Amino acid sequence: VPGYLRGQTDRLELTDRGLAYGDGLFETMALRDGRIRLLELHLQRLAEGCARLQIPAPDQTELRAQLAASAAECPNGTLKLILTRGSGPRGYAPPERPEPTLILSVHPRADVPGSRRSEVDAVTLRLRLGENPELAGIKHLCRLEQVMAQLELKQRRADEGLLLSMSGKVIGGTSSNLFAVFGRQIRTPLIAAAGIRGVMRRAVLDACVGGGLRAAEVDMSRDELLAADEVFLTNALIGIRSVASLDGQAFPERGTSLHLRRLLGLDEHG
Amino acid sequence: VPGYLRGQTDRLELTDRGLAYGDGLFETMALRDGRIRLLELHLQRLAEGCARLQIPAPDQTELRAQLAASAAECPNGTLKLILTRGSGPRGYAPPERPEPTLILSVHPRADVPGSRRSEVDAVTLRLRLGENPELAGIKHLCRLEQVMAQLELKQRRADEGLLLSMSGKVIGGTSSNLFAVFGRQIRTPLIAAAGIRGVMRRAVLDACVGGGLRAAEVDMSRDELLAADEVFLTNALIGIRSVASLDGQAFPERGTSLHLRRLLGLDEHG
Repeated sequence: VPGYLRGQTDRLELTDRGLAYGDGLFETMALRDGRIRLLELHLQRLAEGCARLQIPAPDQTELRAQLAASAAECPNGTLKLILTRGSGPRGYAPPERPEPTLILSVHPRADVPGSRRSEVDAVTLRLRLGENPELAGIKHLCRLEQVMAQLELKQRRADEGLLLSMSGKVIGGTSSNLFAVFGRQIRTPLIAAAGIRGVMRRAVLDACVGGGLRAAEVDMSRDELLAADEVFLTNALIGIRSVASLDGQAFPERGTSLHLRRLLGLDEHG
Repeated sequence: VPGYLRGQTDRLELTDRGLAYGDGLFETMALRDGRIRLLELHLQRLAEGCARLQIPAPDQTELRAQLAASAAECPNGTLKLILTRGSGPRGYAPPERPEPTLILSVHPRADVPGSRRSEVDAVTLRLRLGENPELAGIKHLCRLEQVMAQLELKQRRADEGLLLSMSGKVIGGTSSNLFAVFGRQIRTPLIAAAGIRGVMRRAVLDACVGGGLRAAEVDMSRDELLAADEVFLTNALIGIRSVASLDGQAFPERGTSLHLRRLLGLDEHG
């Protein structure tokens, strides 16, 4: 079992609100040669999530020390962090003074789902993501939509699923953000009402600025996406992965994703 | 600590998908004189949830025996059931053969949040509920919206919050369904895109049929609701609770809720 609970026991109280209500956050971090890739971006998003959900943020010095200790145990792989609002009495109302639960676990690199494919054929899933600006962007624990998306994807002949929101906006893959290249313009969905603002998405946007590429966060329909020259997916573990086709339509270009991989020091396996 | 894990240990594996993704269901049942009120309706909803989420349903004979044993430990109070898809490897994709986790806990009656108010003054919350027909109706574990609603309610001067969906439809209270009476017509929101179809809601609708009352499940806006003569909330624990006012506007009638309480054998404390 890869899981352990730093500073506590290796099992969770049954009254933990993370279990009861999905009342918490998580981060999934790539371990490369003993370092946590994009650590600062992960910590920023976690802090934003704590602020949005009104969960007390963990002490930063202590958290960094615990993350470093975890990374030392598994130099190449995945470090998963779960932070819940902690235990509480029954009922949706949070306790006045929550005592958050922090769970860190490490997973060897072979455990990365689908890590062997360097590009993917995708289909648009029938499932749509509910829209709620109050919860969009942060990586909270309520992920049944993504679970249902994976169940649907299993029934389809495709490597990856494209998820739209209820109002028909492109959001991304089942566990990734999406970029589309139109001529010299790079666009990624705004992630204002559904989806997660990924750390690799942020790193790519920053790299575009640094590399003199034109990038914009915009709403995008599936029809608009199908007019792209190049499409790629990003997340903290896979890095940048090209989309070879969507619903049978091929995207011929690879130049921008190759360029961005070089700028970010990524290989095709993430 | 009121929690225990029947047939297993008293703590949860850290790899449980209920914690990781809210990948599971729950039921909150009223224990009255050693019996589980509305047990059949709870079991029906749980079965519907299992079918919708493709979680293997627990063996019914075994489940009933475990519920009965729990009820015997706490004749008057609350019996909470959590059923998750069980442990699995990291990633949203469920394991091929899930082994669900069943958690039962009993809570003495005094633990019912807000159980002492026989009627409530409500305000419309700013937070809206995301809409997703794939997940609406069932009592899944992804309840951050309800947690955020409680955080907002704490800042408002009111006993209870009214929740609308993103498209402006009335859904219910923060943990209850809503009924509104217009003359001799009883209406309750459809619960097709957001919210939970409560067991007490079902029991009230059934009692209306049995008692010759006209009841309908319909979409309803806040403006339409404000035109009601009588409004009440329902859930498995509170039974039927009158709404004295919404956003300062009083609802004068109590006749239908009193009649329904008698039909269902409920008192004003649920």
